[in-house]
Amino acid sequence: MSADLTPTYTEKGKAFERDMDYVPDRILAGERSQDPHDDLHAEQYGGVREGVRVWPVEPGRYRLVAAPACPWANRSLIVRELLGLQDVISVGLPGPVHDKRSWTFDRDPGGKDPVLGMERLQEAYLNRFPDYPKGITVPAMVEVESRQLVTNDFPWITHDLFFEWRDHHREGAPDLWPEDVREEMETVMKRVFTEVNNGVYRCGFAGSQEAYDDAYDRLWTAMDWLEERLADRRYLMGDSITEADVRLFTTLVRFDPVYHGHFKCNRNKLTEMPHLWGYARDLFQTPGFGETVDFEQIKAHYYVVHTDINPTGIVPKGPELDSWHTPHGREAL
Amino acid sequence: MSADLTPTYTEKGKAFERDMDYVPDRILAGERSQDPHDDLHAEQYGGVREGVRVWPVEPGRYRLVAAPACPWANRSLIVRELLGLQDVISVGLPGPVHDKRSWTFDRDPGGKDPVLGMERLQEAYLNRFPDYPKGITVPAMVEVESRQLVTNDFPWITHDLFFEWRDHHREGAPDLWPEDVREEMETVMKRVFTEVNNGVYRCGFAGSQEAYDDAYDRLWTAMDWLEERLADRRYLMGDSITEADVRLFTTLVRFDPVYHGHFKCNRNKLTEMPHLWGYARDLFQTPGFGETVDFEQIKAHYYVVHTDINPTGIVPKGPELDSWHTPHGREAL
Repeated sequence: MSADLTPTYTEKGKAFERDMDYVPDRILAGERSQDPHDDLHAEQYGGVREGVRVWPVEPGRYRLVAAPACPWANRSLIVRELLGLQDVISVGLPGPVHDKRSWTFDRDPGGKDPVLGMERLQEAYLNRFPDYPKGITVPAMVEVESRQLVTNDFPWITHDLFFEWRDHHREGAPDLWPEDVREEMETVMKRVFTEVNNGVYRCGFAGSQEAYDDAYDRLWTAMDWLEERLADRRYLMGDSITEADVRLFTTLVRFDPVYHGHFKCNRNKLTEMPHLWGYARDLFQTPGFGETVDFEQIKAHYYVVHTDINPTGIVPKGPELDSWHTPHGREAL
Repeated sequence: MSADLTPTYTEKGKAFERDMDYVPDRILAGERSQDPHDDLHAEQYGGVREGVRVWPVEPGRYRLVAAPACPWANRSLIVRELLGLQDVISVGLPGPVHDKRSWTFDRDPGGKDPVLGMERLQEAYLNRFPDYPKGITVPAMVEVESRQLVTNDFPWITHDLFFEWRDHHREGAPDLWPEDVREEMETVMKRVFTEVNNGVYRCGFAGSQEAYDDAYDRLWTAMDWLEERLADRRYLMGDSITEADVRLFTTLVRFDPVYHGHFKCNRNKLTEMPHLWGYARDLFQTPGFGETVDFEQIKAHYYVVHTDINPTGIVPKGPELDSWHTPHGREAL
């Protein structure tokens, strides 16, 4: 996500507030959402979702553009793997660092995405909205033929991969949104989002000592809550992996390599919280998770792109990461 | 130590090189050094020590100006405590952050050192050398009456506190420079200085990725050597504390709070190296060490002063530091 055209991430004296105003289009299997709890016209994230355009589910029609470095994009890469959607939704992978116009396909042959034929994701945004005024973010669903952005509304992208693409899921795909825990899961995901996924950014992009101190306390209150919650549950919602785990995982996997030092989330390392560390390794070692994690790209992204936090652009060599492959013992739970 | 008048610590494209050209005066108990291994006219640190002025040992005549934040100054505070020199050499304590003219007595009543009556240590440098062209560094020995700098040559300050002030040491003061291990101790101290004390700065002030990568590898090679060396020795030179331990300690105590994140020395935390971590706690809990450590000032110094590494000036709340007081079990060695 993120990436303003002017690369300044901290605002002096201010606390960080994430702009949650995305292009809200949906890719649906029918006229309405297949999720019985999802009312397209209800208030979501603080505003009535007017002007939502509905696009049809259609294998091969869309390309998911998702930089492995970015935690919000990483979610969609994991869910696509878990559900076995690799053959129906292709993936474009921007590199970890930006030029001044944000995410680029600099790692692809000739510096262009081989399917969309563009150098910058920005092009897909401008094809859709010639005067698009906001940051160019990943993940983004792009219609291949028109080369236009469909949506960059990250929580709905993974939601719809599950509910709308069901006919295309692999056999035995996990139930990422189990009905029997849905209500509690929404509460858990909300807290994980505001306090952890976004909480680390609130620490790192704080524009004052006071804003940082508050952000730090909020983050660690939530981390302690999670450590306790995972003491006797293998996964956040119990015995099986859900969307809530995907959402927490992408922050945890970046914790020691980036958030601990770069964002000053340094009460302790993830490796110092036994339940969370076992849980994170358990997921990492589950097919669909670890393969989507590229620690080199993750570190390069944060340390190079946030020039106002790390002006030298030097990327740390640490931490040691082999321990992600060590036994976690969580099967016993 | 450190603190140029223009606060830039990294030089783009360059590796960090410490300026070791200090005011080389000595405070001696006689005409010559009391250390049989010390030839005042021999080459030291790459240059013939010409122009060394000798000042006499005299209780009450000098004030040691030593900011608790600074590792090089911290050495002298520890040695003064270990040797019981508190009554014969008074101490002035600059605060952790600088104004543009470097170290200030901003924490003292009225913002002035109560004995020297000055706001800035710079004044003592200028009293001695009106056109002093270099950085204002601590530790500094200052003659109280003339308010002039005597020397800021930090390795010799602690050396001479031991060899020259012996008549004033407390009863039972430790032998910090034992003759029977002197030769090996010089080798160990040299490696600790170049690879660890200065090695962390080489990481933090690297002006290029390549310089940083090299510095990181050098540092961790040395850290692994120390971890192994301390596996079966309680202290660096064996069963008793020496100057070599003092010199290593001041870097170790700053490792997790500062060097790990701020200087990107992040292969692992000190707490993840069992022998070094036990050793560091052993010293911390030894009278003379822990009392000189002010974690708040240490963190404030690095994170506020190095604006080219941490432009926001935000000081991390972590890491958790209570564990410095936990049992270390090193008595058994």
